[in-house]
Amino acid sequence: MSNEVKLHALGGSPFVCRVKIALSMKGIKYENIEENLRNKSADLLKYNPVHKKVPVLVHTGKPIPESLVIIEYIDDVWKGVPVLPQDPYEKAVARFWAKFIDDMCIPAAFKVVDSNGEEKAIAEACEQLQKLENELKVKGTKFFGGDNINIVDIAGDFIAYWLGALEEASKIKYATREKFPKIHEWADNFLNYPVVKEILPPRERVVAYYKMKFGKV
Amino acid sequence: MSNEVKLHALGGSPFVCRVKIALSMKGIKYENIEENLRNKSADLLKYNPVHKKVPVLVHTGKPIPESLVIIEYIDDVWKGVPVLPQDPYEKAVARFWAKFIDDMCIPAAFKVVDSNGEEKAIAEACEQLQKLENELKVKGTKFFGGDNINIVDIAGDFIAYWLGALEEASKIKYATREKFPKIHEWADNFLNYPVVKEILPPRERVVAYYKMKFGKV
Repeated sequence: MSNEVKLHALGGSPFVCRVKIALSMKGIKYENIEENLRNKSADLLKYNPVHKKVPVLVHTGKPIPESLVIIEYIDDVWKGVPVLPQDPYEKAVARFWAKFIDDMCIPAAFKVVDSNGEEKAIAEACEQLQKLENELKVKGTKFFGGDNINIVDIAGDFIAYWLGALEEASKIKYATREKFPKIHEWADNFLNYPVVKEILPPRERVVAYYKMKFGKV
Repeated sequence: MSNEVKLHALGGSPFVCRVKIALSMKGIKYENIEENLRNKSADLLKYNPVHKKVPVLVHTGKPIPESLVIIEYIDDVWKGVPVLPQDPYEKAVARFWAKFIDDMCIPAAFKVVDSNGEEKAIAEACEQLQKLENELKVKGTKFFGGDNINIVDIAGDFIAYWLGALEEASKIKYATREKFPKIHEWADNFLNYPVVKEILPPRERVVAYYKMKFGKV
């Protein structure tokens, strides 16, 4: 029943892609409602009056905003391939790292661009990435989820794909393969993971969007 | 077995108090390890190398940082009084609001103090509080959790208690009962809720801490 699950989306958004990956992992069919950020639909404003942002998942008429909240919901409702670990401790560790990416890594990356590549901002962004690099080194697995992706890998889609596009658009490069070999290896694996590969927007579209956003056209 | 659960804590922290409330709701005995922020214990640095912050819950030797992650863990591991709703949709809604308090309300309150009461910062803080006020009005229940507190009420401990102390310490008052009657009514109920009442630090201690922190002594 494709019409019982709807996703208010923007193809180029890493937060929307997170939800698409989780839906695809579970094999859930859904209706994609592409939003126009300059003219948001009445439904989006009704469903997410607090943030007025995508993604919003609507399941049997009930809206859920916030990508990580949506992913937890998807994992709670639909059985099949798990997106979060089953063990409570492993689950807590996964939640910790997904939150770390949202709270620390992504804001730091945008601060680099906002500051026009200020040394302090780059050092801060590298410091956060180094913590992810260390975690991957300690784990020694292909993905944060082990042999398969989980919520941490999905939350990391920005780092695996959008960060490079942001560096290209802003012409400020710091998250190099030399500095962060484990992150790059993980990103290669993640971007080639079947459900992920099919969902990613074309890179040139992401670069063009960031160029426009940061006035670097 | 009190020694199988340890909490690295700071009595005055709203984030630590969140965890204490959840532990108390479940009737879990634990060893409280009071940290000194100027001289953090080696265990705290080992257990939370990423943020180096309290609270950290240590359960059978395994550390979990981040208050909301800890609360989810407590609810996953110990049955009894639920801290999150059981229904997946209600659970998602609760996660959304707990996250909203952390991401929007608390930073906005500190921005007011950091900006020394700038009009724009106060307007922003009020805008976020208004969203909580509206949610309480729509729900029409005593607590975010209904008749009993849940993770949203617990996450809101800062708003119920610390925000007033911060206003007093900074001498910048904006979250008045006139503007936010529902929040104040909820806060009165929350602060009188048995497990909460016993755990809150003395108000003068919180005020003194904020005065020191923001140089208003």
